[in-house]
Amino acid sequence: MPSRVDRKSKPEATQVNISGIPIGGPEVIIIAGPCAIENREQLFETAKLVHAAGANILRGGAFKPRTSPYSFQGLGEEGLKYLEEASKETGMPVVTEVLDTRQMELVCKYTDIVQIGSRSMHNYPLLKEAGKCMKPVLFKRGMMATVEEYLLAAEYILCEGNQDVILCERGIRTFDNSTRFTLDLSVVPLLKRLTHLPVIVDPSHGTGLSWMVPAMTKAAIAAGADGIMVEVHNKPLDALSDGQQSLYPEDFAQLVKDIEKVAKAIGRKLFHHKQSPV
Amino acid sequence: MPSRVDRKSKPEATQVNISGIPIGGPEVIIIAGPCAIENREQLFETAKLVHAAGANILRGGAFKPRTSPYSFQGLGEEGLKYLEEASKETGMPVVTEVLDTRQMELVCKYTDIVQIGSRSMHNYPLLKEAGKCMKPVLFKRGMMATVEEYLLAAEYILCEGNQDVILCERGIRTFDNSTRFTLDLSVVPLLKRLTHLPVIVDPSHGTGLSWMVPAMTKAAIAAGADGIMVEVHNKPLDALSDGQQSLYPEDFAQLVKDIEKVAKAIGRKLFHHKQSPV
Amino acid sequence: MPSRVDRKSKPEATQVNISGIPIGGPEVIIIAGPCAIENREQLFETAKLVHAAGANILRGGAFKPRTSPYSFQGLGEEGLKYLEEASKETGMPVVTEVLDTRQMELVCKYTDIVQIGSRSMHNYPLLKEAGKCMKPVLFKRGMMATVEEYLLAAEYILCEGNQDVILCERGIRTFDNSTRFTLDLSVVPLLKRLTHLPVIVDPSHGTGLSWMVPAMTKAAIAAGADGIMVEVHNKPLDALSDGQQSLYPEDFAQLVKDIEKVAKAIGRKLFHHKQSPV
Amino acid sequence: MPSRVDRKSKPEATQVNISGIPIGGPEVIIIAGPCAIENREQLFETAKLVHAAGANILRGGAFKPRTSPYSFQGLGEEGLKYLEEASKETGMPVVTEVLDTRQMELVCKYTDIVQIGSRSMHNYPLLKEAGKCMKPVLFKRGMMATVEEYLLAAEYILCEGNQDVILCERGIRTFDNSTRFTLDLSVVPLLKRLTHLPVIVDPSHGTGLSWMVPAMTKAAIAAGADGIMVEVHNKPLDALSDGQQSLYPEDFAQLVKDIEKVAKAIGRKLFHHKQSPV
Repeated sequence: MPSRVDRKSKPEATQVNISGIPIGGPEVIIIAGPCAIENREQLFETAKLVHAAGANILRGGAFKPRTSPYSFQGLGEEGLKYLEEASKETGMPVVTEVLDTRQMELVCKYTDIVQIGSRSMHNYPLLKEAGKCMKPVLFKRGMMATVEEYLLAAEYILCEGNQDVILCERGIRTFDNSTRFTLDLSVVPLLKRLTHLPVIVDPSHGTGLSWMVPAMTKAAIAAGADGIMVEVHNKPLDALSDGQQSLYPEDFAQLVKDIEKVAKAIGRKLFHHKQSPV
Repeated sequence: MPSRVDRKSKPEATQVNISGIPIGGPEVIIIAGPCAIENREQLFETAKLVHAAGANILRGGAFKPRTSPYSFQGLGEEGLKYLEEASKETGMPVVTEVLDTRQMELVCKYTDIVQIGSRSMHNYPLLKEAGKCMKPVLFKRGMMATVEEYLLAAEYILCEGNQDVILCERGIRTFDNSTRFTLDLSVVPLLKRLTHLPVIVDPSHGTGLSWMVPAMTKAAIAAGADGIMVEVHNKPLDALSDGQQSLYPEDFAQLVKDIEKVAKAIGRKLFHHKQSPV
Repeated sequence: MPSRVDRKSKPEATQVNISGIPIGGPEVIIIAGPCAIENREQLFETAKLVHAAGANILRGGAFKPRTSPYSFQGLGEEGLKYLEEASKETGMPVVTEVLDTRQMELVCKYTDIVQIGSRSMHNYPLLKEAGKCMKPVLFKRGMMATVEEYLLAAEYILCEGNQDVILCERGIRTFDNSTRFTLDLSVVPLLKRLTHLPVIVDPSHGTGLSWMVPAMTKAAIAAGADGIMVEVHNKPLDALSDGQQSLYPEDFAQLVKDIEKVAKAIGRKLFHHKQSPV
Repeated sequence: MPSRVDRKSKPEATQVNISGIPIGGPEVIIIAGPCAIENREQLFETAKLVHAAGANILRGGAFKPRTSPYSFQGLGEEGLKYLEEASKETGMPVVTEVLDTRQMELVCKYTDIVQIGSRSMHNYPLLKEAGKCMKPVLFKRGMMATVEEYLLAAEYILCEGNQDVILCERGIRTFDNSTRFTLDLSVVPLLKRLTHLPVIVDPSHGTGLSWMVPAMTKAAIAAGADGIMVEVHNKPLDALSDGQQSLYPEDFAQLVKDIEKVAKAIGRKLFHHKQSPV
């Protein structure tokens, strides 16, 4: 069994602090934003809307691991610059994905949290670089990874000296294609038992269907997740990537209220900005 | 696409009425009891405890589909008689599984709800008999059945004239063995959208781990399930079947309170007995 | 571990003798015929063609476990009578599926081998009846059954006194839908090692694509299968069930020749009729 | 659908020429060697033995993607140097895995074929680098990748101008853990139909069990594979990685003879060195 990630080696829960937002403590947090950063306007409009609705952290992809080489691959560094600007304007810290060991330094320059996505979970050289960078890591479960493999992969990051790892369930692949992936919520209590690291859930990728996101978000919170990461787009129908799993801003605003209620029902709270939104 | 189970053919939700307990309405319901009926005392003691804690319906297996021929196969008709007695004593309606077309009549004589288990989901002759019997049917999803196959199998029952079918997610088989099965909660909103039939969740089989049942029960309710079916044993360590997934009565009592809170958070209530428990 | 099916309990291979055709010995055998018996003419024409091409045993379904209640369900006893007739006319023994404990006696009256299909692998009452009948049993692996569950299910049959069980891999369900099922050929050497029972392969259901059947049949023989069971239809385009996985008679005739060559390459032979075909 | 990999865009089969060894032509080829290069002696001894037995290409890993950070990670460049030396000594071209975009140039310097392993199938930056390098690419299927995803990933390599891609089935992950992975041989005829690229099979990773490798190798050839890649170790019991799936040299020698026979049975031949082995 892995040692550094193991709850036995560190019984108290790890809280990862992101610019004053504690992930893994009594409060649940919300990460929201578009799948891909498409242009300045799309990102800024979405950022303001999710911030006003109560999101704590902004997400947005600049390097996209697309199944087809002919799909939109992301804006690259241009997207990272927009993300940094959007962060300054809204006051929200930001998270974005890194795909390549050669981009780690660049991505770290612009982001508050480095994301390692599902398709990179077994990319051990990338995990080692993430372990050496000075940023918290949002580390998604591989769509085909057992819990043991997932924790051993997280161990690669901790081994290198980086303890600030946030785990994230984002759906696994099963025989049933009714949903894009099968969101495996039982992994939430299981991970909380096996490791001290915080655990959040991405119901957008986990289901692939925006109408299903509210129900599965509430379920994730009820199951004990420390937060959720959800895709919101100012105009889902125009999205260049994953439009059918992106929430409309108004549906996201309603969802924040619902999260608040479910969190309360299980004895937790939603983390709130200390200052009022812009 | 199937016609009778399809929500398009009947937009309003079907409520299955079990001796005054409506399944599929605004209130969520709780089915609880031992996996297998082992003897009179075990069943009666467990029945009284779950009833006192707030369970609405009693479960207990008399015919058990065991993986090994050398495992305890159930008490058969003797078990059914105990179940009927326990029903009279507590006032709770009862549900028990049928495995064989030849036993349908016998099982129906003693039970309020006939259960078709996961391993029988593709047993079409049994489904046809269930469609002809005059009892509501608790119809579990096959552990490796797609949603489409599941609904087409339910259609076999409705085709024969029986509309009182309650669907039940109980975990699917995936590549990951960290839990006994992978509880697929996204199927709850999906089924609610595709069909008018009520949908409940069995977190005991779905996880195989009693300590995980409370978290997944709350998640199931938050996801929109119309009820849960949970295994409780008066002495889990002595259980002849599935002991490690059975709740202690005191943990079940706490769980009922938690269900009440989560149901309220999403605008529903827990169904309560009109009379006080024995 | 199971005892009666275990190779440790009986190191020498079991040969199941079907009217002089040994299954599980040095020679490989071929079972062929239509998925469903549709009418007298279709069965007879197909039977004569596969017999002339070298098939040893005739298959044909009279009771069909169809996913939808609105699909053709088989001819029932009428189909069994045609099968018996076709057997007399061609001299080939026949195999057909039983779905219901109540039909076991009827099916046994007309057939040389009773088939328990994939969807019935967990139907333990049916397995017990198969164990009591006086006919050899062709027992297919469940599409979602582990090897351990499969062998324990076979143990149900042996337990009742019937040792004449032929195992059959017919494809498992995985995340990939490129083929109808995923034919798991590694189970062939695995089963041969774990049990003394003969093991055959059904590449028709295992792939769902007739053009792929020849390649996978040769692979099955090379992997060590004791025979194959393959769907052939006199007019595949008109088939009421599984037409797209049925071979044309002329392709089957070619396949028999190819099987002969591959069998020889691994030191085995194809079983041949002692008398010439009709 | 992808264009460059598509058989419709190029109906004739692509043959990838490796120092005079054509992969994808009428002859089948054999790649053999240890999982990991452990030291000079182990590699050289194994190389000589597999060469003498008839292997065409030598395999050996210098960078290993290990599930645990505490497992042997490979010798790195030191291993690559041994590989180059072993190539010179035996005359066999060599293949080794690259894990990191930053190592592409280094790996290409020492190897004849660059391998992209299963865990890197979705590593799109690495695929793009492989597309730009001047070496043939042995591109393994992800253990949970659909055929469509696999071909789209191969398209990333072809897009960049590298047409010399060899596909390799190495087992997929399913619900059944009886074998380490489930070798999906039906993908062989499927890929041969969908794409013009050569397709080989790795039965060592695909089963994880050395005793099963001979049966599955013969099955792979019978299914139409253009070659196999198999792990052989001079002392399997001492292997630092995957010892239980490595063949003894003498079993490999027997297997080469068996491949020859099965290849002949389906109208192909085994590629032979023009010069006699050392």
